[in-house]
Amino acid sequence: MELIDILAKVQSGDLDPAAAAELINAAAPPAYDDLGYAVVDHDRRSRTGAAEVIYCAGKTPEQIVGIMRNMISRGTDNILATRASQETFDFVCSAIPDAEYFAPARIIALTRKSEPKRGPRVLVVCAGTSDIPVAEEARVTADFLGCDVQGIYDVGVAGLHRLLARLGDLRGAGVIIVVAGMEGALASVVAGLTPCPVIAVPTSVGYGASFGGIAALLAMLNSCASGVGVVNIDNGFGAAMLASHIVNLTAEK
Amino acid sequence: MELIDILAKVQSGDLDPAAAAELINAAAPPAYDDLGYAVVDHDRRSRTGAAEVIYCAGKTPEQIVGIMRNMISRGTDNILATRASQETFDFVCSAIPDAEYFAPARIIALTRKSEPKRGPRVLVVCAGTSDIPVAEEARVTADFLGCDVQGIYDVGVAGLHRLLARLGDLRGAGVIIVVAGMEGALASVVAGLTPCPVIAVPTSVGYGASFGGIAALLAMLNSCASGVGVVNIDNGFGAAMLASHIVNLTAEK
Amino acid sequence: MELIDILAKVQSGDLDPAAAAELINAAAPPAYDDLGYAVVDHDRRSRTGAAEVIYCAGKTPEQIVGIMRNMISRGTDNILATRASQETFDFVCSAIPDAEYFAPARIIALTRKSEPKRGPRVLVVCAGTSDIPVAEEARVTADFLGCDVQGIYDVGVAGLHRLLARLGDLRGAGVIIVVAGMEGALASVVAGLTPCPVIAVPTSVGYGASFGGIAALLAMLNSCASGVGVVNIDNGFGAAMLASHIVNLTAEK
Amino acid sequence: MELIDILAKVQSGDLDPAAAAELINAAAPPAYDDLGYAVVDHDRRSRTGAAEVIYCAGKTPEQIVGIMRNMISRGTDNILATRASQETFDFVCSAIPDAEYFAPARIIALTRKSEPKRGPRVLVVCAGTSDIPVAEEARVTADFLGCDVQGIYDVGVAGLHRLLARLGDLRGAGVIIVVAGMEGALASVVAGLTPCPVIAVPTSVGYGASFGGIAALLAMLNSCASGVGVVNIDNGFGAAMLASHIVNLTAEK
Amino acid sequence: MELIDILAKVQSGDLDPAAAAELINAAAPPAYDDLGYAVVDHDRRSRTGAAEVIYCAGKTPEQIVGIMRNMISRGTDNILATRASQETFDFVCSAIPDAEYFAPARIIALTRKSEPKRGPRVLVVCAGTSDIPVAEEARVTADFLGCDVQGIYDVGVAGLHRLLARLGDLRGAGVIIVVAGMEGALASVVAGLTPCPVIAVPTSVGYGASFGGIAALLAMLNSCASGVGVVNIDNGFGAAMLASHIVNLTAEK
Amino acid sequence: MELIDILAKVQSGDLDPAAAAELINAAAPPAYDDLGYAVVDHDRRSRTGAAEVIYCAGKTPEQIVGIMRNMISRGTDNILATRASQETFDFVCSAIPDAEYFAPARIIALTRKSEPKRGPRVLVVCAGTSDIPVAEEARVTADFLGCDVQGIYDVGVAGLHRLLARLGDLRGAGVIIVVAGMEGALASVVAGLTPCPVIAVPTSVGYGASFGGIAALLAMLNSCASGVGVVNIDNGFGAAMLASHIVNLTAEK
Amino acid sequence: MELIDILAKVQSGDLDPAAAAELINAAAPPAYDDLGYAVVDHDRRSRTGAAEVIYCAGKTPEQIVGIMRNMISRGTDNILATRASQETFDFVCSAIPDAEYFAPARIIALTRKSEPKRGPRVLVVCAGTSDIPVAEEARVTADFLGCDVQGIYDVGVAGLHRLLARLGDLRGAGVIIVVAGMEGALASVVAGLTPCPVIAVPTSVGYGASFGGIAALLAMLNSCASGVGVVNIDNGFGAAMLASHIVNLTAEK
Amino acid sequence: MELIDILAKVQSGDLDPAAAAELINAAAPPAYDDLGYAVVDHDRRSRTGAAEVIYCAGKTPEQIVGIMRNMISRGTDNILATRASQETFDFVCSAIPDAEYFAPARIIALTRKSEPKRGPRVLVVCAGTSDIPVAEEARVTADFLGCDVQGIYDVGVAGLHRLLARLGDLRGAGVIIVVAGMEGALASVVAGLTPCPVIAVPTSVGYGASFGGIAALLAMLNSCASGVGVVNIDNGFGAAMLASHIVNLTAEK
Repeated sequence: MELIDILAKVQSGDLDPAAAAELINAAAPPAYDDLGYAVVDHDRRSRTGAAEVIYCAGKTPEQIVGIMRNMISRGTDNILATRASQETFDFVCSAIPDAEYFAPARIIALTRKSEPKRGPRVLVVCAGTSDIPVAEEARVTADFLGCDVQGIYDVGVAGLHRLLARLGDLRGAGVIIVVAGMEGALASVVAGLTPCPVIAVPTSVGYGASFGGIAALLAMLNSCASGVGVVNIDNGFGAAMLASHIVNLTAEK
Repeated sequence: MELIDILAKVQSGDLDPAAAAELINAAAPPAYDDLGYAVVDHDRRSRTGAAEVIYCAGKTPEQIVGIMRNMISRGTDNILATRASQETFDFVCSAIPDAEYFAPARIIALTRKSEPKRGPRVLVVCAGTSDIPVAEEARVTADFLGCDVQGIYDVGVAGLHRLLARLGDLRGAGVIIVVAGMEGALASVVAGLTPCPVIAVPTSVGYGASFGGIAALLAMLNSCASGVGVVNIDNGFGAAMLASHIVNLTAEK
Repeated sequence: MELIDILAKVQSGDLDPAAAAELINAAAPPAYDDLGYAVVDHDRRSRTGAAEVIYCAGKTPEQIVGIMRNMISRGTDNILATRASQETFDFVCSAIPDAEYFAPARIIALTRKSEPKRGPRVLVVCAGTSDIPVAEEARVTADFLGCDVQGIYDVGVAGLHRLLARLGDLRGAGVIIVVAGMEGALASVVAGLTPCPVIAVPTSVGYGASFGGIAALLAMLNSCASGVGVVNIDNGFGAAMLASHIVNLTAEK
Repeated sequence: MELIDILAKVQSGDLDPAAAAELINAAAPPAYDDLGYAVVDHDRRSRTGAAEVIYCAGKTPEQIVGIMRNMISRGTDNILATRASQETFDFVCSAIPDAEYFAPARIIALTRKSEPKRGPRVLVVCAGTSDIPVAEEARVTADFLGCDVQGIYDVGVAGLHRLLARLGDLRGAGVIIVVAGMEGALASVVAGLTPCPVIAVPTSVGYGASFGGIAALLAMLNSCASGVGVVNIDNGFGAAMLASHIVNLTAEK
Repeated sequence: MELIDILAKVQSGDLDPAAAAELINAAAPPAYDDLGYAVVDHDRRSRTGAAEVIYCAGKTPEQIVGIMRNMISRGTDNILATRASQETFDFVCSAIPDAEYFAPARIIALTRKSEPKRGPRVLVVCAGTSDIPVAEEARVTADFLGCDVQGIYDVGVAGLHRLLARLGDLRGAGVIIVVAGMEGALASVVAGLTPCPVIAVPTSVGYGASFGGIAALLAMLNSCASGVGVVNIDNGFGAAMLASHIVNLTAEK
Repeated sequence: MELIDILAKVQSGDLDPAAAAELINAAAPPAYDDLGYAVVDHDRRSRTGAAEVIYCAGKTPEQIVGIMRNMISRGTDNILATRASQETFDFVCSAIPDAEYFAPARIIALTRKSEPKRGPRVLVVCAGTSDIPVAEEARVTADFLGCDVQGIYDVGVAGLHRLLARLGDLRGAGVIIVVAGMEGALASVVAGLTPCPVIAVPTSVGYGASFGGIAALLAMLNSCASGVGVVNIDNGFGAAMLASHIVNLTAEK
Repeated sequence: MELIDILAKVQSGDLDPAAAAELINAAAPPAYDDLGYAVVDHDRRSRTGAAEVIYCAGKTPEQIVGIMRNMISRGTDNILATRASQETFDFVCSAIPDAEYFAPARIIALTRKSEPKRGPRVLVVCAGTSDIPVAEEARVTADFLGCDVQGIYDVGVAGLHRLLARLGDLRGAGVIIVVAGMEGALASVVAGLTPCPVIAVPTSVGYGASFGGIAALLAMLNSCASGVGVVNIDNGFGAAMLASHIVNLTAEK
Repeated sequence: MELIDILAKVQSGDLDPAAAAELINAAAPPAYDDLGYAVVDHDRRSRTGAAEVIYCAGKTPEQIVGIMRNMISRGTDNILATRASQETFDFVCSAIPDAEYFAPARIIALTRKSEPKRGPRVLVVCAGTSDIPVAEEARVTADFLGCDVQGIYDVGVAGLHRLLARLGDLRGAGVIIVVAGMEGALASVVAGLTPCPVIAVPTSVGYGASFGGIAALLAMLNSCASGVGVVNIDNGFGAAMLASHIVNLTAEK
């Protein structure tokens, strides 16, 4: 119930001011359910444009199923759960059989109501084969969020011609997610070649002085080509969320 | 001259293949001028959507004026130079009198041809008064790039009601740039309240364990609210560039 | 035996000065037992207000049982052992059957003499479900120490209304322990909303640039809202100890 | 105007629901003034127990005076401004002549209405002479906040007997603020000797591997004696705020 | 097909300019094959002097075999795959039986066409027995690349006479690869004794403050003896690649 | 053969100068044996006062036995091997049955010729039970090296009276090795109480912001009590070596 | 007055037990003077073997003179003050004219009673000319403390023969202090060549990845030659203190 | 005097063996001069292929002139001194008037005997105008060392076509020194395009998360294109030394 409606009832005498004050103060609660171990946020889609996503790391399979069931019970058709192991999926699947698992992306998705994809195109570009799991997390998430998404993998700067050959794809994209580990140079090179927003995802691919992705993270933050927004190391999910927000913006226009 | 034109001349016999090959290989040169100390990139606007911007740190005033004059000679009407001290501006201004200086932002701008602002609205939100210089770098840059930009300053989370009172502005924006130092919590809070893309700029405001902006940078990279793209510490300019790319995207639709 | 008593005996001639000097110098020993691998500190409660707590990491199960038995033999009724695995508890339990295990908190507790809880209320607030183990370490410890403690979990800033809906609880608390990983913004937000002492516990929840809790730690140390004391990463126990010291203070008045 | 009053007017027909909704949404504004460069938070005392404090670093003297005048105009009698240089004070003093300057603490204070000090005692203990400026920031702030505060300086662990000689003072305190640079061992030693809450302030005193206070900060976070809350490096102000919150708690009982 | 040939066809009328433009733009593709998970770079030898090497970490055995088969199908006789476990080799070997495994070096090599070794001598010197795996990665790679390579192991500076006794070997070398963990002092000492290029490889050998090789890395970057090029921690492969490039240079003269 | 002897032979005409030059240059070899994977340094005792010690980490059991046998064959009676697992010892023991294993210290020792202990007393003091393995590495090594060594364990500063009660032992020692993790404060406190050289060993005991021993390491390097030499994290062995060198010095006088 | 004397008076009835208890508790005070800003520790020499040394950084000249005068008034003949600027010395000298200044070492010394030097020899060895200020701090301090000290400067490992030529000096020393910046390799090399205790002082000499001395510090902590104790970066004073403690030990024998 | 000559004299009876032993042990001294503050290494050219270079940072102008004069007196014609300020040069120049100063490179050079340049070509490529001082340090040093050197400046990856247009120069070089700050991507891109050894020099150009060159340093160490040797941040001199060693190698063949 909206604030304006509560007030109308107060004016019409259908509602006591004290009760209304309580109602207004309590207006938030219907927006979530408190499961004890989790307070499921049912208002998130209307507030931020995307429903709550379950981050599985550090949660028990029972908790994950509990949250999913709660969301289903509140009318959420499509649910995304990231950082899920195969074991977690097996447990979830026994409870919710139409859940799907995207193994390299480590994502569980429930899609009961599919929507047409909307443009502009989101391109997920990754530097090497070892970066594919993170790129897939981004691609699967963007797809789940209704984006028209495409992946171009293993086009790192050590073989620049592989990238330049895809210049048409790069320039035709609306948003580009660049996924790279090691020295992360791909983000700068792509941003220097294209006019669209670039979202950079450093990965933990590498060893030694890559320091679990710090080298790539710093490189991306210091990109000499501007217009690059960086997300956390290995955070393919977050990059896709940001891309989706950008795509939404064009849709809203 | 476009590639297709070169080839047409080859077919018509007006051009020798070997000469054409050289021409094609040399196709890039017209896109820049080599001043010895700088190779000015005149192709950048067509390639990335924004003309080259001069990063003044580490350049002599003479070099800056040299680059500006070269750009002017090649038909660039509007020029932006960031990280410029008052001394640098004084020198520039004696050479190019219609250059302007935005002191808190440390930006020199030359605007000989102004364009109408285009939407959606870019909002620059900063946490504290001490963050204003970085916020201004973002605001002035976005304005220069033709964005419809607005600043809301000193609404950090220590006084949450100050921020909540601006919820209407936040929700009405197309892109929000959040500028914050210290613990950088404002980015997460804003991203949790709005559906639009959020660009986070950590600042070096703080002392001790803020480590020159690292605390805010890490906080923003780890935002529990997703959809946040992060730029370098104190990089108001880069945030505005990314915002402008996003705005462009909606315009292109 | 107190120093003043020793001296009285010297004056009365019941004690030789040399023997007394030895006694005084040796006055500390009765306050501990040396087990070779551990010097159990029996004076700690009188000195610091809380009995010695066993930190299990790096100790063998035999050592842990040895220390517990020594404490029991010296009259300690209630014993707390933190960072204990299930395997450790199984061993302890076979030796001391009335020991209890709090699995998520990884705490072993022996409570042979329970005391009434004392106020004011200690509130343990955590940001996400994955932070619960650390929050439980704090809650179980505070409860063991006789505090009136309550937990409010999964109210992170990504869904601010979940937190604001608990404003009454927050403002009614005497001490608030805020447990958060990732960007740790919850501590600043809570401290900005309440007048009571806030103890912040960063957790190692997160990945990539959370660096095992460093991001949250730095955020909490740089909180723009003042009045926040920070403890070590994942140190729910230490936060509860500090909260209990604060509660004791109000009791002493 | 309280929410309940607004609603009463709606019910009585004195207020239109739409106007009331606006009023309610706008309920926050009276709690602050927007000066453009600063949004002064006049609600902070009622919300967090202490009025807004001005952090001078990164603010111009004009901005500082502007904020102080705004606070005065809203009825604030006592104002604290930290991290203020002598130059800043000279400017402030010419505008507000009854402002005082505490040089070692780098604090400007305006105290137009003094209140009786309230207990329990807050003790500020520092390790060395070079730590005195930070200790003084804590002492002056606590005093300003109405605490009964005492300083004991230069009692670091290199000469343990100097500290042990003050055991009576330590044990008689309600809250102890320990200020130490270099290896910061004083916090652990004090916490091991006393039953009261200990607030540890690492300082940037030292050189080389003290890394501007990191060594002391880490030591304090890892204190083997529990019950220690840590604040940012050199943050004497924050320690005093936390101490004052704790003291308030005992007063409220 | 070379650019000049395309243009010749355009001139002769055998090719339409538009089609030619496409061809030219597409000229890169023949230089690689896109396997979906990998874009194999067949141009690398001609471009950089060494064929593509497979970095096995983060790739599935199936992907590795797929890449190897693609390379074989394109005429590559000799293939190197680094960071390969015994399990990976077992899988590869069942598919490509003449592949060899160098266990300490963790390298899989396929050598169907051997070439004579070329000078000058590449010397691989390591500080301790624990550094041998990295040294072997360098030695096996250099050998695979056709270098005349020799290993001298366990001659760290703790027993300087062991190194000095090999002064003749050191001074006779063309390139020296120095492999050392712990404090990495061997690189400085060798560079101070010889006139040839020194390539330093820090290793992760050590514990505590060696921080996984950072201590050795920093030491090598700060070598007081100049003429030292450093590669990533444990990167024996990269050192050998650089050595081979240097050796090639002398051959080309 | 000594240099002087070689030269005598040259003078007597028994030796050709060129051959002699070779002999002199080769004079080092007799001081070591090259096993391929290890160059065993038989000159170390005469050069540095202690025979070579085998660091087992990163070496295969076969290599360890090979080195031990080589040392035995060259007349070394007593051999120390550190960082050895139980599995390594089992292998060694099957080859060299009189080898002994010190489990907590992870040391293998072969002692075929025991020597009388020499003073002054080396004291190994550790802060907590979890530090005992490192303390034992120091104690066993010092004992192996012939020192008169004594251990005092679990006397950390959280219970200062436990330490003060041992003041007699502390003041009677010639060298004190202080082993501590967490905040490492014990080193400063001990150094402030005694006049003898203090060797500090930070341990990796702790969690969170102890960063694997960095907190203790920094604390010890920044000790406000001077006269403290620090060794690597967990390096009980190195501390004992240094202590033994110091003890040797007094013996030589 | 000694404890035993107090007790004797109690027994003889000359002293009331309560007064005696107070006396005993207060027994420490005579060992220091509280100047408000400093608690001068007059017991340090008897406790730790060396009188208190004044660390001038962060102290005002007035405070330094105050401490010196207090020490003089309590009978201290020789006083050392480190990290003193020329300006500080000028002030001190006007108050205490027989104070001396050692400019490169930045040390003020007052020596009213000189003592004969005692052996064994302390050798201060530094790697480069830029390390001399730190080496001088060590040499002047050791000399002040009565050591027979000698400096050998600029013998870094880039020119190993310069060091080897001084092998006689190295082997004749009792304690060697090695001072080196950049990669700090000199400590390992010296420790590998000599049997005596080596104290390593990393310096902040260098740039870039020397990180203000961290590179040298880590190298020294990870020395492959054992028997090296490390002090803080640029801490020549601390190295000399440790050396003096070691020398004292041989004297006591 | 060479060893073989000494021995010949021993054999001929012209020399006593004991005296000869002393001579041999002392054979090093003639290779250097000890100025007290510096031990000038006159053997360095014969040992490492390049004469000693003076690192001016941390040396007084008097020391620098002293070292130069000593080198001149020992017959060194050409002297290089790096990291020299204008003030230092002014002092040097008054003493040695034919010394030259290269201002951007901060190098003082004395060239009394010039030699013909030798190939292959050394190319110094830098990313931006702000990197020029470091690039110039490399170029001037390489030129001083007799290399045929060329500079290509401001061709960073943000405008890739500027670099690709110089592909001919890149592929024609023998050694390429890549100088880049910010994200340092240029090194990977160049190494992926050319077959020659690449020496990467990270610079401290940038701000915020460039951390004084760490971002570029890490990127270069993690280059996905292999064959890259990295030197210290801003170490143009070291890169040129390594390049010269490589060029020497081709000359020696």
